[in-house]
Parts: sequence; structure tokens; C-alpha cells
Amino acid sequence: MKVNPKVVILGAGYGGLLTTIRLQKLVGVNEVDITLVNKNDYHYETTWLHEASAGTMHHDKVRYDIEPLLNRNKVNFIQETVTKVDLENQTVELTGQSISYDYLVFALGGEPETFGIKGLKEHAFTISNVNSSRQLREHIEYQFANFHVDEDKKHERLAIVVGGAGFTGIEFLGELVNRIPKLCDDYDVDKHLVKIYCVEAAPTVLPGFDSELVNYARSYLEEKGVEFHIGTAIKECTEEGVIVAKGDAEPTLIRANTVVWAAGVRGSSVISASGFDNIRDRVTVDQYLRYPKNTNVFVIGDSSAVINEENGRPYPPTAQIAMQQAVVVVKNIMASIRGGQLEEFKFDNKGTVCSLGHDNAIGVVFGKKITGFSASFMKKVIDNRALFLIGGPGLVMKKGKFKVF
Amino acid sequence: MKVNPKVVILGAGYGGLLTTIRLQKLVGVNEVDITLVNKNDYHYETTWLHEASAGTMHHDKVRYDIEPLLNRNKVNFIQETVTKVDLENQTVELTGQSISYDYLVFALGGEPETFGIKGLKEHAFTISNVNSSRQLREHIEYQFANFHVDEDKKHERLAIVVGGAGFTGIEFLGELVNRIPKLCDDYDVDKHLVKIYCVEAAPTVLPGFDSELVNYARSYLEEKGVEFHIGTAIKECTEEGVIVAKGDAEPTLIRANTVVWAAGVRGSSVISASGFDNIRDRVTVDQYLRYPKNTNVFVIGDSSAVINEENGRPYPPTAQIAMQQAVVVVKNIMASIRGGQLEEFKFDNKGTVCSLGHDNAIGVVFGKKITGFSASFMKKVIDNRALFLIGGPGLVMKKGKFKVF
Repeated sequence: MKVNPKVVILGAGYGGLLTTIRLQKLVGVNEVDITLVNKNDYHYETTWLHEASAGTMHHDKVRYDIEPLLNRNKVNFIQETVTKVDLENQTVELTGQSISYDYLVFALGGEPETFGIKGLKEHAFTISNVNSSRQLREHIEYQFANFHVDEDKKHERLAIVVGGAGFTGIEFLGELVNRIPKLCDDYDVDKHLVKIYCVEAAPTVLPGFDSELVNYARSYLEEKGVEFHIGTAIKECTEEGVIVAKGDAEPTLIRANTVVWAAGVRGSSVISASGFDNIRDRVTVDQYLRYPKNTNVFVIGDSSAVINEENGRPYPPTAQIAMQQAVVVVKNIMASIRGGQLEEFKFDNKGTVCSLGHDNAIGVVFGKKITGFSASFMKKVIDNRALFLIGGPGLVMKKGKFKVF
Repeated sequence: MKVNPKVVILGAGYGGLLTTIRLQKLVGVNEVDITLVNKNDYHYETTWLHEASAGTMHHDKVRYDIEPLLNRNKVNFIQETVTKVDLENQTVELTGQSISYDYLVFALGGEPETFGIKGLKEHAFTISNVNSSRQLREHIEYQFANFHVDEDKKHERLAIVVGGAGFTGIEFLGELVNRIPKLCDDYDVDKHLVKIYCVEAAPTVLPGFDSELVNYARSYLEEKGVEFHIGTAIKECTEEGVIVAKGDAEPTLIRANTVVWAAGVRGSSVISASGFDNIRDRVTVDQYLRYPKNTNVFVIGDSSAVINEENGRPYPPTAQIAMQQAVVVVKNIMASIRGGQLEEFKFDNKGTVCSLGHDNAIGVVFGKKITGFSASFMKKVIDNRALFLIGGPGLVMKKGKFKVF
């Protein structure tokens, strides 16, 4: 009896799901056994979570069911959590079972990186997944709902600290300044009592972005009431808020009932649990996206590190790179199974757009700087393109962003 | 110079607002100075708060602005909180000023009665006003939003105890059983994990109601998952839930992150602060609705007690009786000012309908028992009638309940 090679894909984020969708189209019905493992029965748009977290978009809009996208004659779907990869025995341990593989695609995504800052894990919210986003949205709303019930009006209920002025932090702030006026209206709160702080240890907002665009974003958010503390480190997060210090200055407390940590992503903790060589749970892959020590194991997305030869540093983890990796991984798996030349992965940066709420954004697309409505429009085009790549026109119609059209 | 008599109305609930509306129609422009004092710039439908509290109706639907209803040539509106009535000097102390009156209508409503049960004030929610209702709604939703984020799934997050199986408790439960499936759906919670308890010290649900209707209501709610603990007293409310005991049985703890106290109403605390003779902050008025010791002071609504001569006990406080009192108070103030015979107040019980969610109810209307859809329809007619009496057809169109029509 012929035994089909077993391909196991871990994670149904941008990288893992696109790998599965592409692979099922290429393989014959009885050629390869494909198994997709994911914690949830849905995929969520990581790049839209800032909207669900601020409450400007319902969380059901940022996720969709995985099953309808799968060809069940070719793909077996297991909804379980991955605890460990046994590289030696070529098995994956899940919460309820253990499965074996011939080829593995590790695409479990990333986790918040707190850099060991005290209290962040216990007291700060993160924009990591559907669960954490709707918790954050409800936490903020609950603070507003409580404000007028307390006998002493606690202003810290209306204070929000965003730790990190990178992509996620800025996009979340953009949504927040759209959301706050609605919350003030809903809970009869004077909008002048609301305080939004952004604390960033680096010397600038959006490090790595063009400075003209950075100034545009910062001015826009400041005008909407965001107070920036740049070059300022969070020393500790407590129940009362955050303790911050600028340079060698005396640390001070910013009182806030809501602290959001949006300053860093590391790889999946399953990476170190499985004994991969790694830096902050990210695996440096070879030019074919393979783990060099076990070349039947591919690592893509937030848990992989691809070195940018221009500066010798890894590309930052994005949906764009994860999806480009998926396309190459599928080719390389097919080449490995059928025989043939492996393809080298080259990241093709098509640009980056950082949204600033529903009608504003900044970005660089095909080398051109854009701001305002046209950037916002382009951002929605990019969002719809990710849907199109995974689910075709049907998914774009169902979950796409058309408000500006 | 002619000095107009000053009529001051405290509170813009059912009684106070209807008094103001009726009075401004009857007086000439330069005949009487009318002042209405209210904490908020809006009136809210106390009898709809169970819907806002459960989250089946937005809180803005249960309130409307007071100002558009007032004739500003005749009525002066002060948005402040009343702290005390000085009966001797005929003044009212507000948070920011002191005003004098010739005739006073005390209509400040009621407050939750906790009967001295330990911990209720600190740990239980109440269905008392817009602030407390939206806080309760958000608290319940926040528990659901947190459920999947906790590492150990805490079932007490999904447990709700309603203390009291009287009118408010049962109507709130009716909304809750409509709301819970939606919350389960929204937060991916298995509905079998949700527990709703109703704890009532009296030997029956809805004491005073017809037993056939009581059975109907109880069976309906049980079928929807409510667990009744009747003849069971709440001994204490803690951070963990409620400690209850049936008769002489050993007290037990029901773990629940949400405890709602819906078991009793007393009068306004301003009553005792002002030195009125009172029982639980309710003032027993004479047949003309006056405070017997100061007959220029009328007390209506939840802070007044009108004795039912059939059983020698005060009528329970309802919107119906408050509005009937308002009609008589207006006549008696006009008679006092212009001279004439005062009118005796007689409560005309037109019936009572207790809703059980959006499409079910029980009630007795014009002496006839009704249940189900027709009772639910009648309940909405009653709700719309209150709007009509205060704001005419315009307010009914704007805020009325028409979903069943």
C-alpha cells in the first residue's frame, strides 16, 4: 500500500492558512495527506485587531471560519493547541493527541514581547488575538460605564496608556481617537477628562518610517488629544498605571486603569519549548525557509527570521512577508515531494500603510509617500487583497472593507 | 410689585415630570413661578431599566431630554442634586444653591433597600437609574469578554445571582434569558456553562400576584435556565458571590461574579436628611397627598406612602400610582393658589403587567388575567401610554415601543 507523504501545517494565520489553501489546489487527491492544526476554528485578521480592540469594528468582522475554505478531500483539520514539536521523532504534540509529519510548516505566529518589564504580564492588555482584543474593548467601555457610578469620580478610569509608538500602537491610537467621542457621548463623560498617553522608549514615533510621515501622524494624533512621551521608558506596570522615566530623570507614575502593551512581538513559545535554535523564539531560516538543522521543517511568519541583506537584520514580522513566505513554502514542499529545484525566498516589499482611524493613514506604496484619505483608501485595498489571496472574491464580498467605496 | 407664588418640584421622574407638564399648561404666564430641579438633564423610564441593565435595549432608548418638554416662559429648570429640604424656612438646599418655595412637590423617587444585609452595598449591582443600569450591563459583558482570556476558565464569571423575585427581579430575568444566548454567541461561550440564580426570601415568586400567573412565569424562566431558590435568604454578599440559607439549613455559598439586588425600594434619603416623619424614608401623606405637618409640601411617587384602606398597608410604589398622584397634586396646587376645593387622591389600579423578555409577559388588566404575546403587547401599550401622558404623540413616536405592531 502506498503511503502518502504527510504535510502538517501548524497555525491558520496569514502564513499557515495561505499555505494550506495553495497546497490543496496543487496536490492530487491521493498524493499528499495535509493536516492543518489551529487553536480556533476561525482565522482572524491580526492586522485588523487594533480596530476590534478599540471597539470601532465588531470582533466578528475580523474573523472568519476556516472550514469552508478547506477541501475536505485533501485537508484534515484539527482544532487543538500545539504544545511541542518533537524534531527528532517528527511528531507534533497537541493538547489531545500526537501527530507525525514528513514535512512541517511551523506558522504559529508571535506573542507579545514584554522585555522583562515588571508587571506588564499581569496588568497590561495586549492586541494579540480575538480574545485579548474584545477583552480590551470591554475593559475600556467598562471603565466609562463605572465613571458616574463611583462616588468619587476616578479620573484614572478615563486614562489610557499605550506602550509603544510602533505600528500597532499608532494604529490603535488612530482607532481610539475615533472611538473616545462615542464613548463620551454614550456615558455622559466630558471629553476633556479623557487622557490618552503614548509612551515610547525609542527617540521617535514609528521608528524606521519616513520622518515627514512620522510628523504627519504625530501631529494628527496630538490634535486629537494624544499626549506623546517619546524617549521615555516604562519601568514598571502596576495596578495604578505605569511608572515611566525619561533618560536619567526621576521615575514618575502615570495613573491609568487601562495600559495597553503594543511595543513588541517575539516568536511562539512553542519554538523554545521544542528546542529550536532561536533568538526571542524566532528561528533564522535558510534561503528556502527551512530550519537548517531539520530541512523538512519550514518556519514562516512571526516565528521566522529572514535576514535583510541590506542591513544584516531580520525583516520585521508582517502579514505581507508571511504571505509571501507561504507562496514559496508551497513551491518548496511540492518540489521536495515531487522532486525539483527549490525556490529561494526574496522579500518584495510592496510598501507599508499605517492607518490612523477610519479616514486617515500614512504610508509608502511602490516607493511613493501617501497620507490622508488616499492612504486610508490604499490601506483598505491592502486589507481586501489579503482576503482575496486566501478566500477569493467570495471572502472579499463577505468580510471586505468597502465603506470608502 | 406682585410676587408670584413659587412652586418647586423636586425630581423629574414619572411623578415630578408629569406634575410640571400639567402645571405649566394650567397656569398663566405671570401667575406662578415654577421651578423643576433634577439631577440629570434627562428623564428616564424607571420601568424600562431592566432592559437597559440586561443589555436588550440601549440606555439612550430609556431616557429623553427634559428641556424640550418645558415651556421656558413658565418653568425654570435647575440641573442640580437636592441635599435637603428645610421645612421650617421653606427652602431647598441644592449642591450649588438654596432656593425658596411656597409650595413644594417632593418627587425624588426611591433608593434600593438592602435591609442591612452585609456586603450588598459594596458588592451588588442595582437596577436604579441609567448609570447603575449601564454599569450592570457592561459588568456582565466584561465577565464574558474575560472568560476565554483567563488561563483557568472561571465559571463564576458566567454566574449571575438575582436577589429578589419581585417585579424588578422577574422582569430583569426575563430580559437576561433573551440576552445570554447573544452573549454566548459573541464570546464563544458554551451556553451550558452560564448559571442564572434567583434567590427570594419570600415563599413564592412575585408575592401578591395570582398563583396561576406566578406558575406561568416561573415555568417559563426555569425552562430558559433560571434556577430558583425560593424561601431562601441572602445572608451576606461577598466578592465571591452570595451566602444563602433556606430556613435553618446550613448557609451555603453561591459563587457568582455578578450579584444584582432587586429586592426592595425605600424612599429618598433626602426624606430623613430633612427630618420628615417617615418609615424607611417614605412619608405617609394625607388624603390630599400633603405632608400633614407642612401642608404646603406634597409628597408623591416612591417617597410617599398612601394607605390602601382595604388592607391598611401602603400601596406598592409604581409608575402608575406616581402619575395618578401627579394629576391630583396639580389640581390641589391650583386650588391652593386660586382658592377652591382640594381633591382627594384615590388610587385606581388599572392593572399590572410583568414582562418576561421581549415577547412574553403575565398580567392582570382591568381584572382579566393575560399571558404570553397578548400580555407582552399590553405591556408595550402601557409603556407607550406613560410616554403619551408626559410628552404627547411626539414623544411616543420618538421613544415608543413599536416592535410588536
